[in-house]
Amino acid sequence: MIKIAVDAMGGDYAPKEQVEGSVLAIKMIDDIEITLYGDETEIRKYLKNEDRIKIVQSDGVISMGEKDPIYAIRSNRKSSMALALSSVKKGDNDAIVSSGATQALIAGAHILIGRLKSMKRTAIAPLIPNIKGTQTILLDAGGNIEIKPEFMVQQAYFAKVYAMEVLGIKNPKIGLLNIGTEPGKGRELDKEVSLLFAADKKINFIGNVEPKEIMDPPCDILISDGFTMNIAMKTVEGTAIGMGKMLKQELKKGFIGKLGMLLSARNLKNFKRRLAPEDIGGAMIYGLRGVVVKAQGSSHSVGFYNGIRQAALIVRNDVLNKVKAIIESDV
Amino acid sequence: MIKIAVDAMGGDYAPKEQVEGSVLAIKMIDDIEITLYGDETEIRKYLKNEDRIKIVQSDGVISMGEKDPIYAIRSNRKSSMALALSSVKKGDNDAIVSSGATQALIAGAHILIGRLKSMKRTAIAPLIPNIKGTQTILLDAGGNIEIKPEFMVQQAYFAKVYAMEVLGIKNPKIGLLNIGTEPGKGRELDKEVSLLFAADKKINFIGNVEPKEIMDPPCDILISDGFTMNIAMKTVEGTAIGMGKMLKQELKKGFIGKLGMLLSARNLKNFKRRLAPEDIGGAMIYGLRGVVVKAQGSSHSVGFYNGIRQAALIVRNDVLNKVKAIIESDV
Repeated sequence: MIKIAVDAMGGDYAPKEQVEGSVLAIKMIDDIEITLYGDETEIRKYLKNEDRIKIVQSDGVISMGEKDPIYAIRSNRKSSMALALSSVKKGDNDAIVSSGATQALIAGAHILIGRLKSMKRTAIAPLIPNIKGTQTILLDAGGNIEIKPEFMVQQAYFAKVYAMEVLGIKNPKIGLLNIGTEPGKGRELDKEVSLLFAADKKINFIGNVEPKEIMDPPCDILISDGFTMNIAMKTVEGTAIGMGKMLKQELKKGFIGKLGMLLSARNLKNFKRRLAPEDIGGAMIYGLRGVVVKAQGSSHSVGFYNGIRQAALIVRNDVLNKVKAIIESDV
Repeated sequence: MIKIAVDAMGGDYAPKEQVEGSVLAIKMIDDIEITLYGDETEIRKYLKNEDRIKIVQSDGVISMGEKDPIYAIRSNRKSSMALALSSVKKGDNDAIVSSGATQALIAGAHILIGRLKSMKRTAIAPLIPNIKGTQTILLDAGGNIEIKPEFMVQQAYFAKVYAMEVLGIKNPKIGLLNIGTEPGKGRELDKEVSLLFAADKKINFIGNVEPKEIMDPPCDILISDGFTMNIAMKTVEGTAIGMGKMLKQELKKGFIGKLGMLLSARNLKNFKRRLAPEDIGGAMIYGLRGVVVKAQGSSHSVGFYNGIRQAALIVRNDVLNKVKAIIESDV
């Protein structure tokens, strides 16, 4: 059995959606057991007598709008997030899924689970949809604001293993997000990383990729430093929100237009779903001694279920040991 | 009369769209004269006997796919772009509009026109649409890959004057594009720039803005270094392209869907136009001793006309002298 810790209190719609997502996961996935960390009375409202789900009472929540999330997780070791993280460190669980505050989760994972010895920096790697209907890994979406080129190489190894084992991609292609496709473009960091990647036989580096191609990239993994990729990821989100509003403003103009919009309602809904981050799955935090999956803060039950499914797959396919092996291997 | 130099040979659809855009500009704007730099035989195909348009024969074109655009402009002083730039330096024209290769235009403007003494770095500032139906200035979209905080302050002054004089905004708000809204977020550069901006009485600084709000920002000018803003701008473009394709894929599904799409055709077209970069106008290159406007490479005649209109407005409202005045003023 794969044992999954769920932070039932983190997220915009916690604990309802987290608990319902867990119930769905138990139904859909045979080889998992879930422990919900949170307020038992609140959690029980959304449970019947499900097998393979238990509850551990916590004390306090790291709230989503926390001004100082790192202080919050440091000073509240009985919170649902802290207890769930610690349970992985202790070996009570194999993985944790949380839709709580990202910075608190990254910091808490560092403190309470710890870093893999062979990985010098952690990173957070969300998935975004592309026009092929598959997903692209964005790395690092905010773990390290400033980073050395050699640490990005380790992160690339991790992403490679993840793409193979979790997304089922055979020889994952890695591209460097950059302001031009020609070699030698970008900052000093980008130039150095390009040279390291190109010389590394363990990864399949295809060179620079411009953000113009972010929804249809010629690669499976897009890499940059945490500042740049966080800007890019949030720009995708901002553009999607803005375009969605503009589309609505335009579509409802005129009688014929309104009729057209009505007839297109189902397709428009599917279009919206294709872009909904929660249907895509969570972001994995790379570089820890345990499996940590961050589901979107706005997750509903299906989104949270997807995060659990992902975490189970990471454990089942032994991603962490495979990452260690690739870092240590000579070729 | 405002005298405008047009690089008739630069752009994906040159010289046709550039010449037709110039003819349109002459019709719409009374106080301008245009000189077209390019291949006279080619240009004449799209001209009747328009008043206020003349042609200067050039020799060679800086092509759009130029591998080394900086070398190209350096070594081809008789090209349409180089001749048009030089004409501004000589005082034959007040402004130049080109939809040629961006890097060649920036480099060429440096060499052939020169930098304003009081501006330490040039910058390129495109406009992007927002959901209010107005435009946001993005600065710097690729002029300086790495830059000192104090040079960004000068660029902010320039953007302020531009927003007031060209976009007609009374007290333009400036936001720093950053990974979080709280003060103290980002890289060392962002922290230093924030402090400088906040202390500067000449600008109306509203603090950090997340890219989630890029299409609906709480400010008129969004600023960052040239690398970051180039990534953000191209991510907007990439997301818009990708979402457009996904929308099309979804909308045409099923018979009812196809019918809905048909009825929505007019509104969908308007939606697409709202995002078309060429309808928005060109990007101004800040920091030069002359007015240089870069129209989109993919400009059609209306887009190119918009670039000319913008250049005329910059000259008419004496933007360069007003920028000098604000840089030199004590408060």
